[in-house]
Parts: sequence; structure tokens; C-alpha cells
Amino acid sequence: MSSEPPPSASAPPAAAAAVDDMSTDLAATTLSKKQAKKDARKAEKAEKAAQRQQQQQQAVDADDPFASHYGDVPVEEIQSKAVSNRVWSQVGDLDAAAAGRTVLIRGFAQAIRPVSKKMAFVVLRQSMSTVQCVLVASANAGVSTQMVKFATALSKESIVDVEGVVSLPKEPLKSTTQQVEIQVRKIYCINRAVPTLPINLEDAARSEAEFEKAEQGGEKLVRVGQDTRLNYRSIDLRTPANQAIFRIQCQVENKFREYLLSKDFVGIHSPKLIGGSSEGGAAVFKLMYNGQPACLAQSPQLYKQMAICGGYERVFEVGPVFRAENSNTHRHLCEFVGLDAEMEIKEHYFEVCDIIDGLFVSIFKHLTENCKKELETINRQYPFEPLKYLDKTLKLTYEEGIQMLKEAGTEIEPMGDLNTEAEKKLGRLVREKFGTDFFMYRYPLAVRPFYTMPCYDNTAYSNSFDVFIRGEEIISGAQRVHTPELLTKRATECGIDVNTISSYIESFSYGAPPHGGFGVGLERVVMLFCALNNIRKTSLFPRDPQRLTP
Amino acid sequence: MSSEPPPSASAPPAAAAAVDDMSTDLAATTLSKKQAKKDARKAEKAEKAAQRQQQQQQAVDADDPFASHYGDVPVEEIQSKAVSNRVWSQVGDLDAAAAGRTVLIRGFAQAIRPVSKKMAFVVLRQSMSTVQCVLVASANAGVSTQMVKFATALSKESIVDVEGVVSLPKEPLKSTTQQVEIQVRKIYCINRAVPTLPINLEDAARSEAEFEKAEQGGEKLVRVGQDTRLNYRSIDLRTPANQAIFRIQCQVENKFREYLLSKDFVGIHSPKLIGGSSEGGAAVFKLMYNGQPACLAQSPQLYKQMAICGGYERVFEVGPVFRAENSNTHRHLCEFVGLDAEMEIKEHYFEVCDIIDGLFVSIFKHLTENCKKELETINRQYPFEPLKYLDKTLKLTYEEGIQMLKEAGTEIEPMGDLNTEAEKKLGRLVREKFGTDFFMYRYPLAVRPFYTMPCYDNTAYSNSFDVFIRGEEIISGAQRVHTPELLTKRATECGIDVNTISSYIESFSYGAPPHGGFGVGLERVVMLFCALNNIRKTSLFPRDPQRLTP
Repeated sequence: MSSEPPPSASAPPAAAAAVDDMSTDLAATTLSKKQAKKDARKAEKAEKAAQRQQQQQQAVDADDPFASHYGDVPVEEIQSKAVSNRVWSQVGDLDAAAAGRTVLIRGFAQAIRPVSKKMAFVVLRQSMSTVQCVLVASANAGVSTQMVKFATALSKESIVDVEGVVSLPKEPLKSTTQQVEIQVRKIYCINRAVPTLPINLEDAARSEAEFEKAEQGGEKLVRVGQDTRLNYRSIDLRTPANQAIFRIQCQVENKFREYLLSKDFVGIHSPKLIGGSSEGGAAVFKLMYNGQPACLAQSPQLYKQMAICGGYERVFEVGPVFRAENSNTHRHLCEFVGLDAEMEIKEHYFEVCDIIDGLFVSIFKHLTENCKKELETINRQYPFEPLKYLDKTLKLTYEEGIQMLKEAGTEIEPMGDLNTEAEKKLGRLVREKFGTDFFMYRYPLAVRPFYTMPCYDNTAYSNSFDVFIRGEEIISGAQRVHTPELLTKRATECGIDVNTISSYIESFSYGAPPHGGFGVGLERVVMLFCALNNIRKTSLFPRDPQRLTP
Repeated sequence: MSSEPPPSASAPPAAAAAVDDMSTDLAATTLSKKQAKKDARKAEKAEKAAQRQQQQQQAVDADDPFASHYGDVPVEEIQSKAVSNRVWSQVGDLDAAAAGRTVLIRGFAQAIRPVSKKMAFVVLRQSMSTVQCVLVASANAGVSTQMVKFATALSKESIVDVEGVVSLPKEPLKSTTQQVEIQVRKIYCINRAVPTLPINLEDAARSEAEFEKAEQGGEKLVRVGQDTRLNYRSIDLRTPANQAIFRIQCQVENKFREYLLSKDFVGIHSPKLIGGSSEGGAAVFKLMYNGQPACLAQSPQLYKQMAICGGYERVFEVGPVFRAENSNTHRHLCEFVGLDAEMEIKEHYFEVCDIIDGLFVSIFKHLTENCKKELETINRQYPFEPLKYLDKTLKLTYEEGIQMLKEAGTEIEPMGDLNTEAEKKLGRLVREKFGTDFFMYRYPLAVRPFYTMPCYDNTAYSNSFDVFIRGEEIISGAQRVHTPELLTKRATECGIDVNTISSYIESFSYGAPPHGGFGVGLERVVMLFCALNNIRKTSLFPRDPQRLTP
């Protein structure tokens, strides 16, 4: 398949660049953000100088008969000037079957390797796929030495269009995902990256094993710290592992929705701006709403219950939840994506547990079976053991859990809550004894929110549960109080001003079915499924007590 | 299929109620919220008195050999006491094929019609489905006159369990969706509604035609105003039209996701808490974030672009967006659900328009073909003409639009924006001339946000577009600026402090592909598809400048 040259190239003959070789491998971790900004500014200046130099060069390169086969495309040419209907290929689709075909691709210039004045390699990347493009100066191919020079002078991560012929390499390629090469006929730069990036993508993509191996060999590789990654998230997101993580996240949400829709749940959207103080407690973001005090919802809890009162029978919501907690841990965020569900129950909140069992088995199966490429990609940088799960999850009472901890030497206040440490220990104990994750149910009423239904036989306990995955609490759920009298009583006992939630409580006076539900954080599901060590790795632009940008 | 009696009934013989008949048809619209609250309190007192009376009655009803076949189930019995594995039927599944079967259902008591001391009807509702339950006192059936009395004394909208035998009525039933009846054998009240509801569901479900017909007959029916509906949203949501509207909304979102996923988009979640001032302008909710000034995102715009810079190629997001605008119109909300997408483009933003064409045709087709029941239900209360749309939407330039308006006598400032009135008029003109909705593109740069790409041939115009449905602007989109230099220039020209968006602008220095995208409000799509007259009808719990509750 032959494709026309881009209009940009044919209209005004684009200039060949003459930027001198510049190393783009600069250690980034050691740079403070300020320093990096300074560098970026310096780099911009350098780039502008290069552009000027390039313009001067134009006259010289006019001698090149192939000058129209390469160059920087001016921004005006990419301002929706025309629709050429040229056919573009996807890097990930390029395989042996494409050999001999002329293809046109656009991608990030991941690596640029000059071999000689007459030869160079440029690796182009699209998402998780990379392909090696080969430039060899040859009059037959319409490739000049100036064109090779232009390619070798490209800055890493620039956006580059390549037109060329797919060929099969003599030896297997190690550094690209695609096992074909492109013999470049034309190459244009669409948008230059600054020559000095604050993060080097190779550094950001290394596994712990690579670091160890290098250290054993006496080599010191640059580590990109978590904060540097997040400061320059738009670069960091390009690592193969990050490309995979957020595709996995999207699949978790898809399967969450699909499964619940198949069980007659309706997806809803509840307001995030609410009056009063959400569910009480201090961890609330407050603001003024057209002169009225308001806050950001800590969960869709009260609204999904009102939707049940509104006759929706089974509802779910995927949306942001806000917690103004000053928790600087590996598993807390100030804003995360809540996966919430609420459903009528006929007689027991185990009906909710059954839905959870089916739901998470369906999510985990889907990931394991249909996201192999993504999981392997994550595994390469962050190796992990596949998650073990049962079709029907083990259930333990809170009392049994406390007892197991006690027998293992950890004394827990029987009516108190488990701290993270005790939780993790219990997770380990259960895994050792039963080889699986588990539901823990019948928590003390005092450690659950006011809307939790007390146990029928002992009101010191509640009809509530948590689910543990890899020994960490991930899902919380319960039967809810469905009568206004008990709800008012419980709210008052929990110190909540019932006036601020009056329309919520009223909803239960107008006919309210017994119901229960659960909530889980999307980021935590991905973090625990992939055994990542920090929830910031599974939030696209995380918010923690210190971080509000980018 | 026979089902066991509920544990509640067999364990402690439940008491038969002896509440006197009480009319529950009370006009609600004329009540202020305060009055309604007072009434609700009064009603609660009345109910408690009724409960006491009922307890006293227990002794009397002990004579009834069928006393265990009916009664109020105490809340303790519904606190997850046991799992009985009883089989429950769905009202919507009850058809002639079920005749002769014993079924167990739970629903809202929508209507209670006493016929005599020996006979009564109770209509049970689940979501959009209703079924008539018949009580006839008979020793053979285990139904006593006390049981009939208990049923007639139920308050409307109470949650009721019925066990009975499905039978075929002699004549077609007009007031229920299901064409079978249930011959009641057992009836239990699970959770009573207050006797006097602030909204009567029948009133809330009437169409304009019914009001007119009644008025012509000299009858005055109660109208439930929009504010009353929203004040008591958990009742209002039970009307058939509202049950349908939010199911349609869920389907729009599903199809939006499905279509974009099929086109290799990745679903993302961007932060709603952001530093700086979002996209500028006054319509921003501000708050303090752990001591730092922050605001709520007016759209995921900057983040979906950073995801494109992060190598995601095509992304979409479904999530809340916040606008602190003081707009009290039929089509503005302070919080709504944004459907946003952003994608790399190769050369022209019409590539985005093509995606929109395919996307909305797929959504509209899906609704028309697979949501017939919901659309008919909405149509019964709010009649509307089906939406007309083409597979390839008509495109007009802004200049052409202005010209059409001019020819029809409406003079518009050629470089200004259209107001709603002009928009609607243009929509009418285009429909008259072309019989369709349309894209309008090439808007003046000055009326579009700073990140909009100017036109290559005239920078007073921009590579932007709006889509009109039923003559109202609904989708907005554009090519975006993808170089840091132009972006800085445009932000500065638009009066935005570039320091507050520095990490956004920086993202374009590290390799940024040309891209474009669009955004649309979920509530507006549903409103315009169903030709509803107010966006509050398509928001579950709407937020406008006046409303922050429930």
C-alpha cells in the first residue's frame, strides 16, 4: 500500500534540521523540580537556537535533491489544513505479514541511534508497541546523508511521522516489541520535545532486578523517584508498565459495570456537592456553594440509599470520592474513584456478599484471560504473584479473626477496629491456614458508620463485612438501617446533627425496602491485583495531602 | 412453585394490624416544605399511635386462626437473621405462563382498594412493573376478614411481601402493567410508609393531556411542582417516567463507553480537586486543600490532554464537572456528568467529528431499538417526537450560520457568540431547510477557550465546532493547541495566569501529538433525546444555584 507524502512536506519543501548531536540521557532523579524547570527553560532556549540554525541551514540543504523527504513540519501545516485521506498504520499491527508494504506511522521517537553518517536507527513508539525504523543513505531509496543527519538530531520523545517499507530483520530484535523494521523513505518531525527531558524513559521503565544486576556489575543506574515521576506525569505515563496499569484499571471498571448491569443494576450519578457534612467526621472538604456552606461527598452512600428508596432496586456508581484525611500512607488518597453498589435485600446481607463473589471472580477472570499483554508488561517492571481467589470466598466472623490474632500473639481490643498492621497479620494468618483471601463479617457496631444495621441478636455487633485481598482490607459493605426511627437514633448516638441529613432520613418514611451494599476503591483493586506497593501508581494524577498538581 | 412462609411470620406469630382507613390522597403541591415536614411529623405520631393500637389488638386477633398469614414484620426479623433460600419472583416476569403457580413477591404498595369487608385489592409495584393482588376472605384459602382489614389499612408505598397464586383475570387489567392477578394467601408489611405522603405518586405521574382532559371535564387535578418533586425526590423517582429516564441515562453512558472502547479509547479518571483556577473564568468553586487554595475542575480538559501527552492516544472520561455559574435556566446545572473524549488527530479535527458521528448514531440507534419500553413509558407522561438524525451529520460553518440568521432577520455580531435564543432560531432554520440537526464549525477564536487551535488561514477563527440537537447546542469540540509556545501565548491573551497551569503547559514540551476532542453533558443528551423541557428532569439529584439538597 503506497501512501501520498504528507501535504506539509510537498507544499513548502520542509527544511532539514542541522541540530548537533545532543545527549538526551540526563539523570533526572537528582534534580529538584526547580532545577528541572530551569533546565527546561534552558532547553527551550537551546531548541529555539537550533530552530534558527535550521532556518539558516535551509539554503544549504536546498542542494539536497531529497530535501522534501524529511524536515520539521511547521505547526501551520497541522492546523487542520486539509483532509488527505492518507492511510495510517498502527505500530502494534506491524508484523511479518506486512513485509514489503509501504506504511505511514506517527509515534514518539523513543530512541535515536546514529550508526554512521550514512545510517541511523529511530525507534518509534505508540502506547505499548515499538518499531525500529532504519535510515540508510541511498539515492535509490531517496535518502540523503542530510536526511540521516536530520534523523539523528531529533530529540527523544519528539512526535515523528515515518513513511517506509516494512522489512524483516536478519536477527530477532531485542529492543522493540515488533519483529519487523521499517526502511525509511520519508521522515518528518511534527512536534519537537525539548532536548533535555526531566525524566529519561529508559530509567523510569527499569525493574528492580535490572538495578540490582547493574549494581552487581558495578554500574550505577539512575532511579526515578515517585515524586519526580508524578511531577512529570505526562512523561512517566509513557512507560510500558504505566500504559498497562491504566488499561487494566479501565478494564476493572468495564467489568464492574458489565457484571452489575447483567444483574439488573442501574448505573447512577449522585451529586458530589452536598449540604451538611456528608457522613460526618472530620475528613470532609468544605466550601461555599452560592453562599451556603457545602462539602464534597465522602462517598455516594446516602444517595445510593435514596435511589433504593426511589424504587431503583439495584444501583451502582463509579465516581470520585473525597477524603480530607491527612494520611500519608501507601494506600490512602484524598481523592479516589469509588466503585459503589447498593441493592434491595430480601432477608440477609449475605445476598450482597454473593454479588461481590460473582463480581470479583468475573473481574479477576477477565483480567487474567483477556489482559495477558498488559499483565506481562506490568510484571516486567513490577514482578508479582498472580492473585489467588475462590469462586466462593471464605467467610470468618470478626470474633474468629480476633481469636486467630490472639492465638498468634496479637491482642486486639475485642470491640475496637483493626489497624493496618493487625489487618495484614490476619491476612497472612488466614492465607497460611486456608490459602485464600476472605470476607470478615459481624464487625463491632461502634467501628462502623451510623447507617449500618446492628445485628439482630447482639446490637454491639453489626451486619457488616470487609473483604481482604492479599491480606489488605479492600471492600467494605453492610446491611443498612431502613427505618427512620432507628436511623435517627443511630445518627444521634454517633454525634451527627440529624438536621443536616434530614432529607436523607425522611426518605425512609415514605416506603423503604431493606437493603445493603458495598464500596471499593478502583485504585486499590488495581494496586492489590497487581501487587503494586503504592496506590499512587494506580491513580492517573494522584491527590494526597501534599500533592495537588499536576 | 410453592414457597415457605417468611421466617418472620412463622417464628413469633405476627400481629394483625387494625389501623383505621386513612385516605392517603393528599394534595402535595400546595404545601410548602415546612408544612410538609409538619405533616410528616404529625403522620409519624399517628403511625405510632396506630402501632400501639395494633399491639392492643393482638389479643383480639389471637382468635383468628389465620393470624400468622398476615401482619407487620418487626424490624428484628429483617436484620439478617437467617438465609431461608426462599425463591422470589419479579413482578415484571409474571405473565399468563405463571398461572396456577404460587409466587412470593416484595414491592411498594402502590394502591389499596377496599371493596368490602371480605374483599380488597392491593397493587404491588417493582420499578416500572405493577401487579394486582386480590384478597378474598375464605377459610379454604386461609384468608380471614381480619386479614382483608389489615391489607386495606396498609399505607400507600409501604413495602409489602405477598405470597399467592397467579391467576388470569376475566377482563384485561387497565391499571397494572402485568395481565395476571395474584390470589393472596399471605401478606406482610415489611416497612410502613407514613400514612400521608408529601407527594401522591398518581399526581406526579400524570401527563399534560390528562390534566387538560380533567379540566375540560371540570375536574381539578393536583399538579406536583418541580420543586416539590425535587424536595421529595425519593418519592418522585418512583414515577414510571422517572424510572425510565434514569435507565435511559444509564444506557447512554453504557453506549458511549462501549462505542469508544471499540474504537480503542481508554477510560480514564482525572482529578476533580485541582490547584490554580481550572480553565480560568469566574465560574469556579474554590476551596482550601490542606492549606493550599484549590478549586473543582470545570471539565477534565487539561487532564485528558495530559493523558494524550502521556501516550494514551485516545481517552474518554465520564465524571462530574462543576460550574459555579449563577444560571437559572432550563439547561444549566452547577454539577453535571461530563462525557469527555480526547484523541490524537493525524491532520484534521474532522477526525474527531467522524468519531462523534459514529458515536451518537450508535447511541441513538441503541436507545430506539433496545429501550422501547423505557421510551414508551416516558412518552406516556411527556410525549415527544422521535429524534431525527443522519448517519453523517450536516456541517455548516459559523459564517454560514450567521448568514442564515441574517437572512431570517436576526443580526449577529459576526465575531461574537450565539445566545440561546439565536441558537434555537438557527436550529429551526436548519431543520426547515435541511430537515436535520448539524455540526457548526469554525467558530470565532475569541469565543472559544484558550487551548483551542486557531485556523491555519485566519487566526480570528478557530478549529472548533458545536453539535446541535433539536436546535440546541449540545456537544462542543475542537482541535487543541499542541505546542507550548502557542499555548502560553493563547493563555496569556485570554488573561490566564500561566503560572497556575505550568505543569499543563510543560506537558507539551516533552513530545505532544496533535489532538482534538469534545465534551457533552450526559443530562443534556437525555433531555434532548427525549425532548424534556428541563435538565432537572434528567439529573438524579440536581444542583442549581438554589438547590444543594437533597
